[in-house]
Amino acid sequence: MQRLLDRIDSPGHLKALPVTDLPRLCEEIRGEIVAVCARTGGHLGSSLGAVELNVALHYVFDSPIDRLVFDVGHQAYAHKLVTGRRDRFATLRTEGGLAGFPERAESEHDAFGVGHASTAISAALGMVEARRIAGGRGKVVALVGDGALTGGVAFEGLNQAGYLRRDLLVVLNDNEMSISPNVGAVSEWLSKRLASPSAERVERLVKAVLQDAPHGARTIDVLHRAVEAAKALVTPGMLFEALGFRYVGPVDGHDVGALVETLAGLARLEGPVLLHALTAKGKGYAPAEADAATRGHALSFFDPRTGRPATRSSGPPPYTDVFAQALCDEMARDGRVVAITAAMLEGTGLRRCQRRFPDRTWDVGIAEQHAVTFAAGLACEGVRPVVAIYSTFLQRALDQIIHDVALQRLPVTFALDRAGLVGADGKTHQGAFDLAYLRCVPGLVLMAPSDENELRHMLRTALELPGPAAFRFPRRAAAGVPAEEPRALPVGRARWLRAGGPRPDVVIAAAGAPALAALSAAAALGAEGIDAAVLDARFVKPLDEEALCDAVTGPRRLVTVEEGCLAGGFGAACLEALAARGVLADGVAVARLGLPDAFVGHGDAGRQLAALGLDAAGIARSVRELLGAERPAGDRLTARADLGRATG
Amino acid sequence: MQRLLDRIDSPGHLKALPVTDLPRLCEEIRGEIVAVCARTGGHLGSSLGAVELNVALHYVFDSPIDRLVFDVGHQAYAHKLVTGRRDRFATLRTEGGLAGFPERAESEHDAFGVGHASTAISAALGMVEARRIAGGRGKVVALVGDGALTGGVAFEGLNQAGYLRRDLLVVLNDNEMSISPNVGAVSEWLSKRLASPSAERVERLVKAVLQDAPHGARTIDVLHRAVEAAKALVTPGMLFEALGFRYVGPVDGHDVGALVETLAGLARLEGPVLLHALTAKGKGYAPAEADAATRGHALSFFDPRTGRPATRSSGPPPYTDVFAQALCDEMARDGRVVAITAAMLEGTGLRRCQRRFPDRTWDVGIAEQHAVTFAAGLACEGVRPVVAIYSTFLQRALDQIIHDVALQRLPVTFALDRAGLVGADGKTHQGAFDLAYLRCVPGLVLMAPSDENELRHMLRTALELPGPAAFRFPRRAAAGVPAEEPRALPVGRARWLRAGGPRPDVVIAAAGAPALAALSAAAALGAEGIDAAVLDARFVKPLDEEALCDAVTGPRRLVTVEEGCLAGGFGAACLEALAARGVLADGVAVARLGLPDAFVGHGDAGRQLAALGLDAAGIARSVRELLGAERPAGDRLTARADLGRATG
Repeated sequence: MQRLLDRIDSPGHLKALPVTDLPRLCEEIRGEIVAVCARTGGHLGSSLGAVELNVALHYVFDSPIDRLVFDVGHQAYAHKLVTGRRDRFATLRTEGGLAGFPERAESEHDAFGVGHASTAISAALGMVEARRIAGGRGKVVALVGDGALTGGVAFEGLNQAGYLRRDLLVVLNDNEMSISPNVGAVSEWLSKRLASPSAERVERLVKAVLQDAPHGARTIDVLHRAVEAAKALVTPGMLFEALGFRYVGPVDGHDVGALVETLAGLARLEGPVLLHALTAKGKGYAPAEADAATRGHALSFFDPRTGRPATRSSGPPPYTDVFAQALCDEMARDGRVVAITAAMLEGTGLRRCQRRFPDRTWDVGIAEQHAVTFAAGLACEGVRPVVAIYSTFLQRALDQIIHDVALQRLPVTFALDRAGLVGADGKTHQGAFDLAYLRCVPGLVLMAPSDENELRHMLRTALELPGPAAFRFPRRAAAGVPAEEPRALPVGRARWLRAGGPRPDVVIAAAGAPALAALSAAAALGAEGIDAAVLDARFVKPLDEEALCDAVTGPRRLVTVEEGCLAGGFGAACLEALAARGVLADGVAVARLGLPDAFVGHGDAGRQLAALGLDAAGIARSVRELLGAERPAGDRLTARADLGRATG
Repeated sequence: MQRLLDRIDSPGHLKALPVTDLPRLCEEIRGEIVAVCARTGGHLGSSLGAVELNVALHYVFDSPIDRLVFDVGHQAYAHKLVTGRRDRFATLRTEGGLAGFPERAESEHDAFGVGHASTAISAALGMVEARRIAGGRGKVVALVGDGALTGGVAFEGLNQAGYLRRDLLVVLNDNEMSISPNVGAVSEWLSKRLASPSAERVERLVKAVLQDAPHGARTIDVLHRAVEAAKALVTPGMLFEALGFRYVGPVDGHDVGALVETLAGLARLEGPVLLHALTAKGKGYAPAEADAATRGHALSFFDPRTGRPATRSSGPPPYTDVFAQALCDEMARDGRVVAITAAMLEGTGLRRCQRRFPDRTWDVGIAEQHAVTFAAGLACEGVRPVVAIYSTFLQRALDQIIHDVALQRLPVTFALDRAGLVGADGKTHQGAFDLAYLRCVPGLVLMAPSDENELRHMLRTALELPGPAAFRFPRRAAAGVPAEEPRALPVGRARWLRAGGPRPDVVIAAAGAPALAALSAAAALGAEGIDAAVLDARFVKPLDEEALCDAVTGPRRLVTVEEGCLAGGFGAACLEALAARGVLADGVAVARLGLPDAFVGHGDAGRQLAALGLDAAGIARSVRELLGAERPAGDRLTARADLGRATG
């Protein structure tokens, strides 16, 4: 029998189905999502949990005239399948294929691009106001997960939306967990529904109270008890009603027929409305339902029958694991060391710390700003917080790093995972900017480890500093070097990975993981008779200006390598040092290698690095060009940037 | 009669007074605040409104063992007066004097430094947790204004605090306005107290409902009405109770005796508690009470009898006014242009837009993140939003600029007021970092006007671009040039302010306001026979690499000038361009002038710029040094940074 799904090339085809066919369509969509995610990896659990919501929204509303704004977009796979992207769905998250998140450039049905959480209400409200001004028609609907509600910007959006009283429908997809199970009072509040309310239950309880009372005793006392009972049994909706929203729910988020009916009713309401739908993460796929917290969220390839990872790599552990273990070791060694994550206990490896030190590990929810200021408060009292946040998400907390931590010289350590290219998650998640946006922060010590021992040393270094520090490492397997005991590094001192001869032909200076690629490049160049010294900067700030400038004074040729944006990054820091110390006056040919001034798309990070000339072969090529002719060396940069733009 | 205040050298002295003396002390504090602010300027209204709260908190709690964490700190003047800083209070906000905000370095009683809003709950919670781990004793109290509650990070903090259930007292100082009158559902909610509740009133109402009912009709219907009545009359506390806080209030925030009693009771409670105190901004000083929204907030010198500004300058208007008028003109010209501010209708000048175009001007509250994503949503629908936020506050929205605006190439314009040194507001408010943190954003056009016509042109340029753009201007009077019609500038093209001869001795490249100082420097140098060409970059990104590199190729000497941090800023961009185009290979002596890698303290911005060598004399000096000897030129940078650190 042909699948219904195979006839859906647009939401119009979906609308043509009778409502009674929707459950079958949902099951087909579920099967497709599991089959494709098994091959490409992806955000399986969220997307499975939101199939009925996606289908019902497209059945009732009329995208793209009505705007469907997805928060985070982990839950948008069914949306992609019914909006003309079915044929390409198997390319999800692969190079040149569909993005893992909604993207405006990908489809007219992707009203707002997304990847970071908690943005949908703000964006949707902007669309509502724009249509009021510009005269557009159609509803705007934001589909928001309960985890996203822990983010402050979502609250800021609710606050203004409730105040403006325009027509905005927010659908809360409540599966009681974002990535890790949710924390916070809002989550607890939402889950109170399990223990209580609905108007009907309130009435039953008040009735019971009155029946207990003596006959005729219609006294203030009895009434007082009734009122208190009513107050204690307020619905989860009270929170949203307080913010000016009309609250509807909770409803079953997997009953697609009922959802269609409810949404059709809500579509006619005016003013801000919140529909609270209960869903199960991983719904309909047993392995994901059973372990929604971890395997249900984001997976690489897996066996679709069991849900188990299809391959288990035997190489070195990921940097994430090295970091988490190193942090546990430091927490064991020093009771003042504590760990903080923003809804990423699994992703940052801090689950390990939480298991061993539950009293000294906090998951604060999707709340990077609060995580950093909370850490500042901890540091004020002599505690040594380590804040583990992905490079791309720490962008949310720049002000707190500057204003709450660095300005007060508080000893907070920032561990930035996923720095550099992240692969399948793509544009929204690339850790491209951290060196640039952190390097301008006064007093912040900024490091990048070139292997896992360096990471351990840098964590120790940070914990012994009197002020703030950060180190950044990639989403990748570590180098596989034999483990050393952690030790504090001398601050602002680089190390020579390859000293070169008394007068090398070129200096290659690298920050972080690319240092090992630079070392390989130098070995290859050595075989060609080119003597390249390789400097592992260790510290992007304070930079080892002396080592750099002394080394460059001889060859007057410098290649810098970083897995980060070139504007204001590590290479820029090297130029600034050469200028400040007067080295530039006598002439230095410089090629800076790094990420282009563009948003690099999803793909295989290794292949992308090679295409960007950031692997050993690319670095060697840049050195040869720099030595061959001074002028083209600079132009390499442009070539790199163009290539990146093509990728992006 | 000697003032009570003159005997208060520490909170201990305050505690020794009988409660009955506290009202008199409060009046004395008020008088002192008005007298000093009249001379130094300052946040008069907030501080006058919070006198009783400050005094009662110090009377009941035991700082510094108990921690008093101020949000924003506009309200902390009374706190400064009773914590050993009375003698220096007259130096408030002046160079070398007391800071306008709490600063950890200034007093052990300043538990947490502050200047940006909404941080106190997060920091206080960190202190609570640290004391639990490290075994410290004492209470932690956060004093938060109602305006600060519109900031998402405050909500993130409440969310975790309510969940953890630790002992934390949040005192909400509710004056119904932050800087401009507050907007948002939370504010409306809080102000519902005027129309309603208190448990007593709920009971009265329920009683009335039942009396209307027929005798003996103790039916579900009547009960239902009673319950609904109770639900409709929930207290403003419901919002906080939903978040896990025990809510107490509202109480009169000016009855110091009652406050002492209430706080003493609350000090013994366990778990998270919120005390809701009602205050009047500007309390006790008629001119500030009468116009709390504007004159009550932050003032320069004024006549203490009338509250009117003491001097009215006759020079050119501030850049803020030029911007606001230019934006009004653009809004009049094009109905798609809209304006957004984050609680700064006065500070950004957008009050003018709001008056003329109330439907197209939004104040979103202290919610910079939401402001930017809201703008992105507007831009998706063809509207042209202009987001006006101070440089220092836009740090809060870096992720939204990258992820929601630039990644989607949406045409949002960012107008950054207060870029560079801001004077009396000091460390927390310096606009030092924007060029660095914005220059790394792909696809963002970044501009800095050197005079008010340039500002008008840049606004027009931004509004005609297909993607995002930003321009930054200082807190200062404009240059006073004759007004030109706004026109779009060619993107990425610099302009020569002084071409120099066929072979100038040096190129001075400047971004923004320092360009005019550079021009003056060049004139002075010309009189000494030094030919300096002056380039006004106009665009920091995309930089006019061709003009810069062509010009530098001759003299091989470059001085860059910017009123922003050196790490990754405009000067770094120039170095990157010279490197990329191979110009560095032949040798270029470079001196980069800018703000030091330190937090510059409060003081007179003009004097600070001169001390940092960023005025015409300083620029000329740097040029002479660069020409005299190549080596020291670089070292100037170090000297500058040292000086800045001394200032900071």
